[in-house]
Amino acid sequence: VSDHPPSASSPSEDGLLRWLKELDPELGRWIGDDTALLPAGGSRVVTVDTQIEGTHYPVGLDPRVVGRRLLAVNLSDLAAAGASPAFCFLSLATRPGFDHRRFFRAFLRCSHHHRLQLAGGDLASSTQTVASLTLMGSIPDGGRWLRRSDGEAGDGLWLGGTIGASALGRFLLAAGAATWRDGRVHLASPITGGSSQHQPLRQAVRRAVRRHLAPTPQLRLGHWLGRQERAAVIDLSDGFGKDLSRLCAASGVGAEIDVASLPLPPELDRLCAILRRPKMEVALAGGEDYVLLFSLPPAMSPPPRFRCRRVGTLTETPVVTWVGIETWGTSNQPSGDPGPSQLLGWDHLNQD
Amino acid sequence: VSDHPPSASSPSEDGLLRWLKELDPELGRWIGDDTALLPAGGSRVVTVDTQIEGTHYPVGLDPRVVGRRLLAVNLSDLAAAGASPAFCFLSLATRPGFDHRRFFRAFLRCSHHHRLQLAGGDLASSTQTVASLTLMGSIPDGGRWLRRSDGEAGDGLWLGGTIGASALGRFLLAAGAATWRDGRVHLASPITGGSSQHQPLRQAVRRAVRRHLAPTPQLRLGHWLGRQERAAVIDLSDGFGKDLSRLCAASGVGAEIDVASLPLPPELDRLCAILRRPKMEVALAGGEDYVLLFSLPPAMSPPPRFRCRRVGTLTETPVVTWVGIETWGTSNQPSGDPGPSQLLGWDHLNQD
Repeated sequence: VSDHPPSASSPSEDGLLRWLKELDPELGRWIGDDTALLPAGGSRVVTVDTQIEGTHYPVGLDPRVVGRRLLAVNLSDLAAAGASPAFCFLSLATRPGFDHRRFFRAFLRCSHHHRLQLAGGDLASSTQTVASLTLMGSIPDGGRWLRRSDGEAGDGLWLGGTIGASALGRFLLAAGAATWRDGRVHLASPITGGSSQHQPLRQAVRRAVRRHLAPTPQLRLGHWLGRQERAAVIDLSDGFGKDLSRLCAASGVGAEIDVASLPLPPELDRLCAILRRPKMEVALAGGEDYVLLFSLPPAMSPPPRFRCRRVGTLTETPVVTWVGIETWGTSNQPSGDPGPSQLLGWDHLNQD
Repeated sequence: VSDHPPSASSPSEDGLLRWLKELDPELGRWIGDDTALLPAGGSRVVTVDTQIEGTHYPVGLDPRVVGRRLLAVNLSDLAAAGASPAFCFLSLATRPGFDHRRFFRAFLRCSHHHRLQLAGGDLASSTQTVASLTLMGSIPDGGRWLRRSDGEAGDGLWLGGTIGASALGRFLLAAGAATWRDGRVHLASPITGGSSQHQPLRQAVRRAVRRHLAPTPQLRLGHWLGRQERAAVIDLSDGFGKDLSRLCAASGVGAEIDVASLPLPPELDRLCAILRRPKMEVALAGGEDYVLLFSLPPAMSPPPRFRCRRVGTLTETPVVTWVGIETWGTSNQPSGDPGPSQLLGWDHLNQD
């Protein structure tokens, strides 16, 4: 146990706050006290998400990327609620040597872009960097708070983007096949090779790493969904299989998924083979996709500008059926790994 | 970097949520989705505080104590704002083997006691337990949001309780002179001895450790202050010297402190001698006192039931004067330790 008060480990907190107020003069209105007073009648949608070094992103990752990812992951929750960001509160515990200014420059630039005001928080020292963000948003005029539980049997099931790319990126980073440095993805030779036939593969690797480190929250799609007569919505954080099960369980329905229609990242098969990871694990259980999964009444479809893909239908019977999953094979499935039912989260529907 | 998605490291998250909903049926209304929708027109006072294992409390501390301390530290911020707790959001990253149920039983019991509703959060795995709480409160009828900046020269300066006890507790724990086990303080022999003359010392040790691990937020005092014509308020988290400087800087004033009037814990001198810590470091810079420091117009005093002590006066000149500090001596001051000006945070008033 440390025999120093927590303040002693972060002697520069007051100095950092002064710097922050210069960087963002508006901040001065908010962070003078230990509490913030929000404007009346406003930001009632609240979400919290945490990014932990070594768990959610590679150790030593550029603090700029950490800051942007933290925001994106939280904004994705607001997107799934049909809300617009308004205020955020940051709790930042950092390992020795963490470059706060690099973190905050990116964090504030990104939050301004989303008209989001940092309104308070907490700084501390730690052996491992842990950043937790509380995000408060409001429902736009004409919109509605969206939940997971509004799905009905017969509704179409849609995805706002590809699944599996973020997991590919995570596996590629963990395998050392790619690194993120100076704002760019750098590739190691085993995958990239020299010949031109590797070009699509290299592009796919870059795209996967960017999807993992810099996801794009689907706020506009969320707003559109909030104006429709009915929509059950969840953002994919823990994998398509698991989050689909959650949506189904909350809505009291099941689902039939047309596996052939699932939007997958380019070169998924080749990259799964190289990584010796089963496609099922990467695409259906990979997690951190941060795209919206949603249901709409049968006859409805989202406008083409959102590039959504219909992937199935909600059903009366509370089980998930994967039509065509056998075509994916199990050639890369390492023995001893979790089987499909665990990967796809079937246990949620048949919970004890 | 981990090659598992964050969810894979906490496979029991859904099971834990089911257990939590059974423990607190009200919780089910709130934590079904990734966002919570708060009632209209309510909880506009927001604060965030984090407790990190090994920084804010000893490694391996009983999760029940961690849960209660996390709440107390945050409630103390609301107390300083004159607010009443309403909703909270918890981000909990835990080391392997952390007993979540023990944590949550204590956390929920304590939050119910304060009429505080857990309304969302985030669970993850980590190498070090980090618990971050966002607390939202409302201003009671007839009250006002309190800040640090409302002090005026001539106002009396008051303390809501003793200073230094929490730091004593922290030093005693760090020195192995006391441990917390099975809900009790256990003492090691060097301090406790066998003879009856050690009885007051033993009591003082127990009290100091309890003050450190289980502080009591002064919510009622905060409510009373919010109904007065003028009050600048801060809760002491980083030490009396530093937080006094913050109040003075925010109010644009200085202060004259009557050192002889400072409320100190029993046996402070003897325990400082045993620990070889200067009294000044323990009492004025120890931190984590979680009592309110506040100013009131000259003629006013708080009701006796709050047991507050007047410790000085705010002054026109923006410096802090410690009248009688020389009587404290410097016999326990280890060479090389920070000098008084650092300990007492004078630099805040004369910042560059």
